Amino acid sequence: MTDDYARRSYGEIEVGFGKKPGIVVVDFMLAFTDPAYPLGGAPLVMRALENTIKLLEVARRYGVPVATCNTAYMNEREMPYWKITAVRETFRHDHPSAPIDPRVYDPDYDLAVVKKGPSIFFNTGVADYFTKERVDTVIVTGCNTSGCIRATSLDSFSYRYRTIVPEDCVGDIEEQPHRDNLRDIGRRYVDVSNLDTVLAQLETWHRQNAA
Amino acid sequence: MTDDYARRSYGEIEVGFGKKPGIVVVDFMLAFTDPAYPLGGAPLVMRALENTIKLLEVARRYGVPVATCNTAYMNEREMPYWKITAVRETFRHDHPSAPIDPRVYDPDYDLAVVKKGPSIFFNTGVADYFTKERVDTVIVTGCNTSGCIRATSLDSFSYRYRTIVPEDCVGDIEEQPHRDNLRDIGRRYVDVSNLDTVLAQLETWHRQNAA
Amino acid sequence: MTDDYARRSYGEIEVGFGKKPGIVVVDFMLAFTDPAYPLGGAPLVMRALENTIKLLEVARRYGVPVATCNTAYMNEREMPYWKITAVRETFRHDHPSAPIDPRVYDPDYDLAVVKKGPSIFFNTGVADYFTKERVDTVIVTGCNTSGCIRATSLDSFSYRYRTIVPEDCVGDIEEQPHRDNLRDIGRRYVDVSNLDTVLAQLETWHRQNAA
Amino acid sequence: MTDDYARRSYGEIEVGFGKKPGIVVVDFMLAFTDPAYPLGGAPLVMRALENTIKLLEVARRYGVPVATCNTAYMNEREMPYWKITAVRETFRHDHPSAPIDPRVYDPDYDLAVVKKGPSIFFNTGVADYFTKERVDTVIVTGCNTSGCIRATSLDSFSYRYRTIVPEDCVGDIEEQPHRDNLRDIGRRYVDVSNLDTVLAQLETWHRQNAA
Repeated sequence: MTDDYARRSYGEIEVGFGKKPGIVVVDFMLAFTDPAYPLGGAPLVMRALENTIKLLEVARRYGVPVATCNTAYMNEREMPYWKITAVRETFRHDHPSAPIDPRVYDPDYDLAVVKKGPSIFFNTGVADYFTKERVDTVIVTGCNTSGCIRATSLDSFSYRYRTIVPEDCVGDIEEQPHRDNLRDIGRRYVDVSNLDTVLAQLETWHRQNAA
Repeated sequence: MTDDYARRSYGEIEVGFGKKPGIVVVDFMLAFTDPAYPLGGAPLVMRALENTIKLLEVARRYGVPVATCNTAYMNEREMPYWKITAVRETFRHDHPSAPIDPRVYDPDYDLAVVKKGPSIFFNTGVADYFTKERVDTVIVTGCNTSGCIRATSLDSFSYRYRTIVPEDCVGDIEEQPHRDNLRDIGRRYVDVSNLDTVLAQLETWHRQNAA
Repeated sequence: MTDDYARRSYGEIEVGFGKKPGIVVVDFMLAFTDPAYPLGGAPLVMRALENTIKLLEVARRYGVPVATCNTAYMNEREMPYWKITAVRETFRHDHPSAPIDPRVYDPDYDLAVVKKGPSIFFNTGVADYFTKERVDTVIVTGCNTSGCIRATSLDSFSYRYRTIVPEDCVGDIEEQPHRDNLRDIGRRYVDVSNLDTVLAQLETWHRQNAA
Repeated sequence: MTDDYARRSYGEIEVGFGKKPGIVVVDFMLAFTDPAYPLGGAPLVMRALENTIKLLEVARRYGVPVATCNTAYMNEREMPYWKITAVRETFRHDHPSAPIDPRVYDPDYDLAVVKKGPSIFFNTGVADYFTKERVDTVIVTGCNTSGCIRATSLDSFSYRYRTIVPEDCVGDIEEQPHRDNLRDIGRRYVDVSNLDTVLAQLETWHRQNAA
């Protein structure tokens, strides 16, 4: 199999884990996690939800900053030019599928923002929250890999965070775009990892900082 | 062939051409257009370069705002966590591969910015330039489709422009990621088009505004 | 009276009214408009509230985009380093003084955002909303002139809007800082105007666009 | 003397010095430091230049990140709606007054950006540079207090840095606006300090980190 990217030095340098992690949880809203809705219940998304719940249980215990979001608008006038009918019709503040799935959201701990674009960082206060916390390493979770996870990972890189994407904490409607996007970002911007590895990194980080 | 995205209403709504176009030209720097350099001379990129030259010749004649860029840094301390050795070593202000290819750049007309992340909009003045010009439709050209074009298209959508990506004016190192990314963004955020269609749209727009 | 600024050409060029207005309404939250709260009820702020209500009645009738905001946080961990005790203690989502004064807010028409810094544009979607609407002229209202109005006017200028500040639609705790700040921004960035002049401009704009 | 701001709890909380400083140097371009130009050579600006040179000599020795800037444009089409004739006519890339004064600029050390608005943070990469460095405390120097220093201090606060403005390292054309603006920002957003205090803080910080 050819890989002209590898030959041209893509993916050669690992990003690594820095000194202070933060976690972003992207779009685990009922629209994606409840199969009752047109975009809801894809198996890879449900797997990501389960794993993210495990990750956040540890992260909150260790004081790691967590930012979570949904995507919702006042009306169609406010929206960007979405090409997806279900998004235009249901991503509204007053729609029953708009809230973040309560299984993955702790309102007493997580910073919650309503984002308007694909990236959780785009014109929200999430990066500012992380600046005050001196976060230098962002762990990306949520859905969908070929949509808002790609966008969030890109912005995380552009904001000059070390970025880690545990592949079993992000999900998509189909597996092929999930893999394609992890390939693209893993070559350039982020370390593609998994839940167990990230949990071990948090454990090590916590021990070093508690000492 | 299954397409669970189409079944869930992805790609159903066309974006369309608005009232005032602007063009962004992403990373046609010598590093990508000159085969002497490690990332340079990929056939799809050279095709995109040829077609973008044709597009810009018309755009400048019709007064369409054009923003162009390269990616360069003072030193490695300034860089985001690039995983590509060739980027870390050669994307420097003083490197001979940093300048924009003169075939595609008119310093008397184009707004040139030095970007630091994948997107031409990320912390540059390009969106502000377009705001003053009342641009509502952004045509994306340059390289690479699976890198900076994906990021630029995403930001263009998030800034709430109508976004058009002529597929023969954007290029990549290999064809598969080129296609994968056009598929992902064409489902959600942008109209994937081609040079001839965009030239015809500019012609129509110019006639209506000259009248 | 000396004025070295005028001698050095400050304030010589008028900004003017463009082709599409938008209005921002800054921080008319109960904390500032209700004298029951520590920061509330300053006379200049109440005058600005009355005048902004009149302005918005016309603006909504003519379809002018309106963005309004309050400033509120989850907790002190989320806040920037405010030096004002009353802000740290009461600018919380769940505080009774957080909501926008209902006299100046139409939830069916106005885009409402919760801002985190002094400027209504800082990491909110307001500029993106205006981009889709092709706004080129921003009219600034609200409080306080020496705080969030100064910051909002600055950002409006930086986003390259034409910016108009009707001085009787913005208010402050004391008159001197109100005047000082209008002096500073009127020299550099914005046209300082008044309600009657802006109402006449909206009338003219509406007639030209209805024709 | 009345002070309704103090009575309402403005200025009660000190910001303080955090764990990692960064310095921004705003607009010490020849246009402001050379009396040959229409905006140049104001005494408070020249005092600020002298003091900033002393501050930077220490800062660079201690490895403190430094970002510096000028303000320049390709042409008037690119500019925001400046009301100052001298700015419109001379703040151009190719104008002899555009370069940063070499006495205050070390091209081998300082990150230099060309900004387009009053704030050094507005759509430049400076905040991203500081994120990678884990800066949490920004020291603001440069000119003019009632213009770009006010704007930069505001953004520094909004980005959630601790912000320190040594009043003898910032200058203005006249003294009254200089004082008015230090009053406004010192009440709300920043600690107004001076060169000697900041030098002592850097000394302490360096000793603690070298240990």
